Amino acid sequence: MNEDAMGRFPVPDREEIPDDILERIDEETEDAGFTPNVFPAFAYKPSHFRAFFDYHDALTEDTSLEREEIEMLVVTVSGVNDCLYCVVAHGALLRIFAEAPKLADQLATNHRTADLSDQHREMLDFAEKLTESPGKVDDEDLKRLREVGFSTEEIWDIASVVSVFNLSNRMATVADIRPNDEFYDMAR
Amino acid sequence: MNEDAMGRFPVPDREEIPDDILERIDEETEDAGFTPNVFPAFAYKPSHFRAFFDYHDALTEDTSLEREEIEMLVVTVSGVNDCLYCVVAHGALLRIFAEAPKLADQLATNHRTADLSDQHREMLDFAEKLTESPGKVDDEDLKRLREVGFSTEEIWDIASVVSVFNLSNRMATVADIRPNDEFYDMAR
Amino acid sequence: MNEDAMGRFPVPDREEIPDDILERIDEETEDAGFTPNVFPAFAYKPSHFRAFFDYHDALTEDTSLEREEIEMLVVTVSGVNDCLYCVVAHGALLRIFAEAPKLADQLATNHRTADLSDQHREMLDFAEKLTESPGKVDDEDLKRLREVGFSTEEIWDIASVVSVFNLSNRMATVADIRPNDEFYDMAR
Amino acid sequence: MNEDAMGRFPVPDREEIPDDILERIDEETEDAGFTPNVFPAFAYKPSHFRAFFDYHDALTEDTSLEREEIEMLVVTVSGVNDCLYCVVAHGALLRIFAEAPKLADQLATNHRTADLSDQHREMLDFAEKLTESPGKVDDEDLKRLREVGFSTEEIWDIASVVSVFNLSNRMATVADIRPNDEFYDMAR
Amino acid sequence: MNEDAMGRFPVPDREEIPDDILERIDEETEDAGFTPNVFPAFAYKPSHFRAFFDYHDALTEDTSLEREEIEMLVVTVSGVNDCLYCVVAHGALLRIFAEAPKLADQLATNHRTADLSDQHREMLDFAEKLTESPGKVDDEDLKRLREVGFSTEEIWDIASVVSVFNLSNRMATVADIRPNDEFYDMAR
Amino acid sequence: MNEDAMGRFPVPDREEIPDDILERIDEETEDAGFTPNVFPAFAYKPSHFRAFFDYHDALTEDTSLEREEIEMLVVTVSGVNDCLYCVVAHGALLRIFAEAPKLADQLATNHRTADLSDQHREMLDFAEKLTESPGKVDDEDLKRLREVGFSTEEIWDIASVVSVFNLSNRMATVADIRPNDEFYDMAR
Repeated sequence: MNEDAMGRFPVPDREEIPDDILERIDEETEDAGFTPNVFPAFAYKPSHFRAFFDYHDALTEDTSLEREEIEMLVVTVSGVNDCLYCVVAHGALLRIFAEAPKLADQLATNHRTADLSDQHREMLDFAEKLTESPGKVDDEDLKRLREVGFSTEEIWDIASVVSVFNLSNRMATVADIRPNDEFYDMAR
Repeated sequence: MNEDAMGRFPVPDREEIPDDILERIDEETEDAGFTPNVFPAFAYKPSHFRAFFDYHDALTEDTSLEREEIEMLVVTVSGVNDCLYCVVAHGALLRIFAEAPKLADQLATNHRTADLSDQHREMLDFAEKLTESPGKVDDEDLKRLREVGFSTEEIWDIASVVSVFNLSNRMATVADIRPNDEFYDMAR
Repeated sequence: MNEDAMGRFPVPDREEIPDDILERIDEETEDAGFTPNVFPAFAYKPSHFRAFFDYHDALTEDTSLEREEIEMLVVTVSGVNDCLYCVVAHGALLRIFAEAPKLADQLATNHRTADLSDQHREMLDFAEKLTESPGKVDDEDLKRLREVGFSTEEIWDIASVVSVFNLSNRMATVADIRPNDEFYDMAR
Repeated sequence: MNEDAMGRFPVPDREEIPDDILERIDEETEDAGFTPNVFPAFAYKPSHFRAFFDYHDALTEDTSLEREEIEMLVVTVSGVNDCLYCVVAHGALLRIFAEAPKLADQLATNHRTADLSDQHREMLDFAEKLTESPGKVDDEDLKRLREVGFSTEEIWDIASVVSVFNLSNRMATVADIRPNDEFYDMAR
Repeated sequence: MNEDAMGRFPVPDREEIPDDILERIDEETEDAGFTPNVFPAFAYKPSHFRAFFDYHDALTEDTSLEREEIEMLVVTVSGVNDCLYCVVAHGALLRIFAEAPKLADQLATNHRTADLSDQHREMLDFAEKLTESPGKVDDEDLKRLREVGFSTEEIWDIASVVSVFNLSNRMATVADIRPNDEFYDMAR
Repeated sequence: MNEDAMGRFPVPDREEIPDDILERIDEETEDAGFTPNVFPAFAYKPSHFRAFFDYHDALTEDTSLEREEIEMLVVTVSGVNDCLYCVVAHGALLRIFAEAPKLADQLATNHRTADLSDQHREMLDFAEKLTESPGKVDDEDLKRLREVGFSTEEIWDIASVVSVFNLSNRMATVADIRPNDEFYDMAR
């Protein structure tokens, strides 16, 4: 495991990591061609690793959203929360899934600068508000999402992606999870 | 299932809910004497239900913190995020676990008004900062936690509780999950 | 007098307190069955005590608002300002006057979660704005209050309750006035 | 009475105003050489007029602070709250009482630009914090006031001036009380 | 040169100042009857002096706006940024160019309190937003400016004045440039 | 000229552009191998073009700072202000001058995540504060810069870079200046 995967907690050695988690790490490594640092980082606490990645899997595999929309949400939220790991790693994923090499830098900096459909603009306005001031969200916000065509399930899924990355951003920042060098350049 | 468990998404009928989730709901109902509304609410999306409650279980069952400390964190974070369900339901849990009937109202309103040890004051100052401005968290903040005696694992666990409730608060607010009447009064 | 009525200033002894103030304290004690701590606390400075409670009396006795509306405003403002004494003590009064045991916790946490008429929702939106950013209040805000049916005098009275509790919240926080134990539970 | 004393509520005619209030208005008029608009404005609601000015009288007549310190607090707080009436009218009073023609503009804009003693700098830092984020005030803030030499009573009096002008600023803004032309120029 | 022109950097002696800059300073001195402190202050770095005043000259001499509108923008922006030099010096210019002795104090404190045309109210709302939260500016903001009659060039010029004074305010605050005594009183 | 250099103002044709400005644009084009969009964009108003680029030239050519430090400041400030053009274009310049391919993404997202010397950390903390809350800057902030070794001239130059990019960010955002495709990838 890469010792430098995070700056503020010790990364466990392979032998300390339970088999199911090692297996997941190895799959990810094979997929990506390298081990994204969030995996060895979360292996610090196996019970958290399992729940965290189950949630991420549910968000991307059992969803009414396009994968590209999910990554748009993630990059926007992570930009608002100033989270380096998530901006860089999910920026790479967004470039891949949206086949849009500039979109990640635009959303991470300011989603208002991207060339978005009205629907996606509303989606990201909502993501920003739910991130910055969750207590101010009200019926009007959900009404606007419905008016641009989002279904009930899509709204749940949008809220879930925003909420889970409000978790991820905070853990990545506190743990100082470092983006792998590969992510910075990928799919540009 | 209580149809009014949440205001903005439909609560599924028992027959629509997968068995493992029904089983969990029934266990919780037996434990509490009523079904806390967060369970039928999250049953709206079973894959999310499983990951969400696995995370919560991990936070309370595989932890270096006292249960009372966990609930102190939850109530403080939920107060900052203005989340009704979490303030009311976890306020009840805090009254039970801390055996301190007034502490929940104090932390939900303003943790500076509670009679806390220096260690717990630092813990809740950190929880507030990580909730309000995650991007401003830095080495100094972790140093202060260490100086009042928190171990590395305790710091991970503190950050995890704060982070997961930054997820929970947002989902409960968007879904408008309603606190059960029982929670308002419990253990006062 | 309860020495612990406030944490940051000395509470005067009965013999140090002028007669008119003692009389008022005794009346309040008889009314409530205990002495609400704000009375011995403000007795620290008799000239302030008199003006402060005269203003409070004027707000509740010479008003175009229902008492329940006044307490809704107080609890909402005090929640925004994170003031423990006012949230807890006026939360009790709101439960009594509105005959609504859950409303106080809802307004103190987030007035958007309460089941409010359109008129009361506008009233509390205005209270929140006047508390959080008084300099941004303008004609549009008053127009919205008029559109949901508030008269000129009602608007003055709403603004006055909000303004006086922006005073009360600050004094109670600086002085660390402690809510009496009785208030936490009352009328739940 | 000057009909234009405020922009958003009707100013009462002399014959509608109770005698004790008329008497006070006439005294103020004689003192100042004109009728400061806050007096006819508050005459809109006599019970509020009496309590409001009793509080102001208590702040300036029964105080451990110098009058010039009181006006420094008022102008600083009113600048933070963007309140025109209070900035202009109390700016004039500050120029008179401090015999410092530039101080009012400095404090209204940014108290950090004024040439202040350490004691007064702490006092105004505290005033700014108690105005902007009352819920964040804690023991450290009071300790700093004590360290620069303020007594317990002086701290109460400082907090009271700040708190009352958090009331005044809000009422003056909502009512759109207009500063008299005379105040803009006075004692420059 | 006035040694006290700024508090945090040394003001150069006349012999250290290049001729073109001395010439400009002398012209300004003749115009105003005194040397506005921003000129000796910026002479600290001649290359910055030239660019800074060229920009200011361009803003006032090659513009689609009235001079009075420019000063309205400057005073409003400088009030938002709490910049003493710019509020006081440009407050004087606004009083002169608008022939409105009270307007400067109104805009510096809160532009909502001034008696403005709809067009000027939109202009200053835009100035406030572009100053406080530049990243939130979007098409809607420009549309509103167009709807109240501003041309494309006027919008560029408005944005330029706001932007340049976001520069000026920061330099004046960091350098602690002192407003000349003359500005405080001028044209009242 | 690239018509799409900015989204909200018309880009002038070559024949409309004065010779000195065309000359500068042609030089820049030769240097970079393409025409950075900020040049045709600012050609909209030649008098502004000249002052704007004179200031930029002064910042980089007559400076006590390293070029890499200047670009660190620019990218950090532009990240705080959510300005796409400046983040992307100056991100490229930072990668070139610092020979650090990841530094730009780190500073644009959150300078706390970069591996900085104490001196550079203080420099960027100051840049963030001067950008976010210019009115709160005081002697303590300058003292900290001096304590980590910055000279008086370096502090002036740091403040100037921050201030000028508070101008640039606002103009680029209002005009919707589009980063050239080349910048996104350059020197990664």
